[in-house]
Amino acid sequence: MAAEIVNPRSDSDKGTQSAESAAGEPFDPAFALHRGGKMAIQATVPVRDRDDLSLAYTPGVAKVCTAIAEQPELVHDYTWKSQVVAVVTDGTAVLGLGDIGPEASLPVMEGKAILFKQFGGVDAVPIALATTDTDEIVDTIVRLAPSFGGVNLEDISAPRCFDIERRLQERLDIPVFHDDQHGTAVVTLAALRNAAKLTGRGLGELRAVISGAGAAGVAIAKFLLEAGLGDVAVADRKGVVSRDREDLTPVKRELAELTNKAGISGTLESALAGADVFIGVSGGTVAEEAVASMAPGAFVFAMANPNPEVHPDVAHKYAAVVATGRSDYPNQINNVLAFPGIFAGALQVRAARITEGMKIAAANALADVVGDQLAADYVIPSPFDERVAPAVTAAVAAAARAEGVARR
Amino acid sequence: MAAEIVNPRSDSDKGTQSAESAAGEPFDPAFALHRGGKMAIQATVPVRDRDDLSLAYTPGVAKVCTAIAEQPELVHDYTWKSQVVAVVTDGTAVLGLGDIGPEASLPVMEGKAILFKQFGGVDAVPIALATTDTDEIVDTIVRLAPSFGGVNLEDISAPRCFDIERRLQERLDIPVFHDDQHGTAVVTLAALRNAAKLTGRGLGELRAVISGAGAAGVAIAKFLLEAGLGDVAVADRKGVVSRDREDLTPVKRELAELTNKAGISGTLESALAGADVFIGVSGGTVAEEAVASMAPGAFVFAMANPNPEVHPDVAHKYAAVVATGRSDYPNQINNVLAFPGIFAGALQVRAARITEGMKIAAANALADVVGDQLAADYVIPSPFDERVAPAVTAAVAAAARAEGVARR
Repeated sequence: MAAEIVNPRSDSDKGTQSAESAAGEPFDPAFALHRGGKMAIQATVPVRDRDDLSLAYTPGVAKVCTAIAEQPELVHDYTWKSQVVAVVTDGTAVLGLGDIGPEASLPVMEGKAILFKQFGGVDAVPIALATTDTDEIVDTIVRLAPSFGGVNLEDISAPRCFDIERRLQERLDIPVFHDDQHGTAVVTLAALRNAAKLTGRGLGELRAVISGAGAAGVAIAKFLLEAGLGDVAVADRKGVVSRDREDLTPVKRELAELTNKAGISGTLESALAGADVFIGVSGGTVAEEAVASMAPGAFVFAMANPNPEVHPDVAHKYAAVVATGRSDYPNQINNVLAFPGIFAGALQVRAARITEGMKIAAANALADVVGDQLAADYVIPSPFDERVAPAVTAAVAAAARAEGVARR
Repeated sequence: MAAEIVNPRSDSDKGTQSAESAAGEPFDPAFALHRGGKMAIQATVPVRDRDDLSLAYTPGVAKVCTAIAEQPELVHDYTWKSQVVAVVTDGTAVLGLGDIGPEASLPVMEGKAILFKQFGGVDAVPIALATTDTDEIVDTIVRLAPSFGGVNLEDISAPRCFDIERRLQERLDIPVFHDDQHGTAVVTLAALRNAAKLTGRGLGELRAVISGAGAAGVAIAKFLLEAGLGDVAVADRKGVVSRDREDLTPVKRELAELTNKAGISGTLESALAGADVFIGVSGGTVAEEAVASMAPGAFVFAMANPNPEVHPDVAHKYAAVVATGRSDYPNQINNVLAFPGIFAGALQVRAARITEGMKIAAANALADVVGDQLAADYVIPSPFDERVAPAVTAAVAAAARAEGVARR
């Protein structure tokens, strides 16, 4: 699964003084590591002599091209299409940095690409677009699609990200997946399922409050309801999204219809009174009193990075299970647990799209990796648990077949 | 220079029976070799543990993104942009196969990509577009440009290819290079220079006739005139392109103004009477009588593949120097002698474009590799001569600096 690590440029480039001086920074290992980029192309066939060349290129390649022209599905057999994903951004919502533009987003897209390779064995190409126009983004990706087996949308700001994903999947017969939405939702559900199992409760008994109505918050809310959670309320900066609010965007209006069966309104913190689950994807903060007001045996998933909405040490005073987005605390909710296996499984069976059932299967497989070791500080596996990607891959491929979206 | 060759999929995939049955073909080594594609992504930094991840991805990557947002040129230092080229086609003029569409063109684009890596150490990504509309192709590539250090246009039919390249280079500050035009022209000039040197003539003394007024023919004609050739006439299916023809497209109209000082008209074969150089890029044929009518000590470059316009054995009866596009005869005019080094040199100095001077420098460096071994059957080096790419790279980088288009 893991890609071989070699760096043809490391001797000449990485960590040179010029790296730091060019960056106008004191020496920093991050700059040294990023010098020259983090990825390369590798030939997987030999081109050592005339005979190699006449097979890999002209004239030998012509037979392969002709066969694909006659049977288009053969493109999956005789090119890298079925193992390569485009990681596409417009640079508008990069990490916590916001709208920093396409060039500045590239280090993140390269990072994502090498995680695809390292954890899922999936080749990925970073594509940072010089447009933020929804129509242009959709049209551009549709034109690129013949070269790729899937599209991972990344760091595209809400609400455009919802429309872009929906319109692309309508027009393309390869999976289109906005990881900031669905990857986060899948890992969150996996952790939540294990937390419920640990405390002997069913998902239907739980009432969750989500802080943040952006890409992640909206996707998590919808996904948890599909998974059977009892009730979910979502709060944005103005308070809980409810039917009586007059200031809702179309996306939040739909959310108001889907969520908050209890019909609560008011602030996030008031909504937490008696709630079973807090899910923070806002970057805001939550007062200790509000956490203290939650139901007994609550779950606090404070996923804002680098600063959780409530410090884990504080949350532990009141909650049965605490998770964060940080790697230096237990129970890290990290998308890398999901997206490599989800795409690997979808590509393996040439799925036309990634269905809700495939995402549920991914969350369940991810939760099941924990198995008998289930504990309050271990409701989700480590990103470096080598069992994760194969389990998610197999579950997603099987679900794709069961749902009739697999093409082999 | 050469990329390491590994194939993670070879055991499981390549050469299986299913490859052949899927292709509906008897066993063929080309299908076996292409099974699963010919390339992969490789991480060049480690992602083995939490510390690696925190440097290559969040939180470490954020500093690098912020630095690029503040100093956009740093994208060249801290991503793979400056070593990766997009190999872009619309699938309309693939090899001799014509308009076979984007998917069927992918094996050629992958082949091109691995040649970039193997011969020039340049990473390249195949992009086959689902559009043949000139405006859409230009807009799409402009939107992709932030992710790439250069654009190699490939197998796009004439006359659209001329307009697409010109408009892209006007809008982009990275090199845009249609290899079917300029790569062919560079290698042709290199061979012609050595042929002239071998026979003690200056380029200014030579009158050339080119068969074919497509991408290659037009580019070769213009480039040879810039290089100082005495006269060049170009023939299409209807005969020699001349000012008195009423049926010319805008591109051929311009060609009529630039070429054919002698003002000849009529058939290709009549134009060959007394000509010093024949350059075939048409796929047509030339009668032995016409070759016999050329000037003494003529050069015949019959580059059509797989069937040269005149068989080399026939050409040798009348010509001092014979070259073809075939690897199984001496003097192979092969673009792989040019494009890897041209892009490697341009990327090395971050050239904003590839100028005529850079192409001339590439041709001269390529010709000079032959050196003292110059002979009638050795006017151009072998594609596997390891001196070629470094020589072309250095010459192109130096020319870019001399012409003021280098940015470092």
